[in-house]
Amino acid sequence: MKGYFISIEGTDGSGKSTQLEKMVSYLKERCPRVEVTREPGGTPVAEKIRELILDPENKAMTARTEMLLYAASRAQHVEEKIRPLLEEGAVVVTDRFIDSSIAYQAYGRGLGQIVGEVNRIAADGLEPDLTIFLDLSPEEGIARKRREERHEMDRLELETLAFHRKVYEGYDALCRQNPARVARIDAAQSVEEVFSQICRALDAVLSRR
Amino acid sequence: MKGYFISIEGTDGSGKSTQLEKMVSYLKERCPRVEVTREPGGTPVAEKIRELILDPENKAMTARTEMLLYAASRAQHVEEKIRPLLEEGAVVVTDRFIDSSIAYQAYGRGLGQIVGEVNRIAADGLEPDLTIFLDLSPEEGIARKRREERHEMDRLELETLAFHRKVYEGYDALCRQNPARVARIDAAQSVEEVFSQICRALDAVLSRR
Repeated sequence: MKGYFISIEGTDGSGKSTQLEKMVSYLKERCPRVEVTREPGGTPVAEKIRELILDPENKAMTARTEMLLYAASRAQHVEEKIRPLLEEGAVVVTDRFIDSSIAYQAYGRGLGQIVGEVNRIAADGLEPDLTIFLDLSPEEGIARKRREERHEMDRLELETLAFHRKVYEGYDALCRQNPARVARIDAAQSVEEVFSQICRALDAVLSRR
Repeated sequence: MKGYFISIEGTDGSGKSTQLEKMVSYLKERCPRVEVTREPGGTPVAEKIRELILDPENKAMTARTEMLLYAASRAQHVEEKIRPLLEEGAVVVTDRFIDSSIAYQAYGRGLGQIVGEVNRIAADGLEPDLTIFLDLSPEEGIARKRREERHEMDRLELETLAFHRKVYEGYDALCRQNPARVARIDAAQSVEEVFSQICRALDAVLSRR
């Protein structure tokens, strides 16, 4: 692989959208080709799967089905878009990747290790070179989100605080298990403080090869 | 599990629909509750996934994505419908189950053993008590289908003969690996001959408990 694969992860209200935008500007000043994508989605087929997952009408959807749909969307995203871009030498930044499935499904929904097994198959072994994790307690994250009141909450956002605590526990475990890959950044700091720590993590990875 | 779980499998043109209908009548005369279902599909969420898979517009769909969507549809089908019915003591007859994924995806599309791994997770270990396999060579199956000319071919039916040969090889391997579960019946025989062999296999399973 000639390119770099970078993911950004964070719970609701952690400032992920803001930091993603700043990260991409920073990378574009330094790298000839930067591509931004997101999960679930990223290609037309994957977006159709995303619509199924997020549609509030599908209340009967089981946790296992949801997990397999995220994995199907990821498989399409990796094979049709991410891998070809990396082979062309692009820096690919994705809003969420496998860590989201581990946190939300393995921990949040309690599905356990089958989530990692299915997703290694879905991504055919692809892992990010760097993952930015914006670390914010679920209590603070939900409080921030409600203050904003800018959009209607979707099905996942309506889940209870207990669920978000389990998701956070999942991210915490991932950070401890993958210290070389995951840069854990305290998202309770100011936007500029968070961003400067992200830049340091990006610089370290880009200078590695 | 108090009920019985029976699947019917066969390549295109093997007479599966005809035999399924006759099987169900036969079972209804002998068992207090018989439920018929099909894959991919079987519940509203699973049917929506089925629509995505079979939509000819989704030409960019990769083999891995397709396999994971079939698995997602199956997970929903098993958890929402099949397991609850079996627990209530019903005889559940499904038009296709995991064997179809092994034959079409592992063999036909060449995805190999990951198909079995993902599907054991999707079905949470559920296996049929009996699988009826209607055995017809792909050459004869396609010839029969074309003579009928009763419906437009869908995306899967349009695949080449080479693909159907690999699918057949998959079913052949499944029969040899699971002789106690799979009843292999020569579908080149007359409808009545095939049906009488199916009845013998059903009687053997229903008298087992």
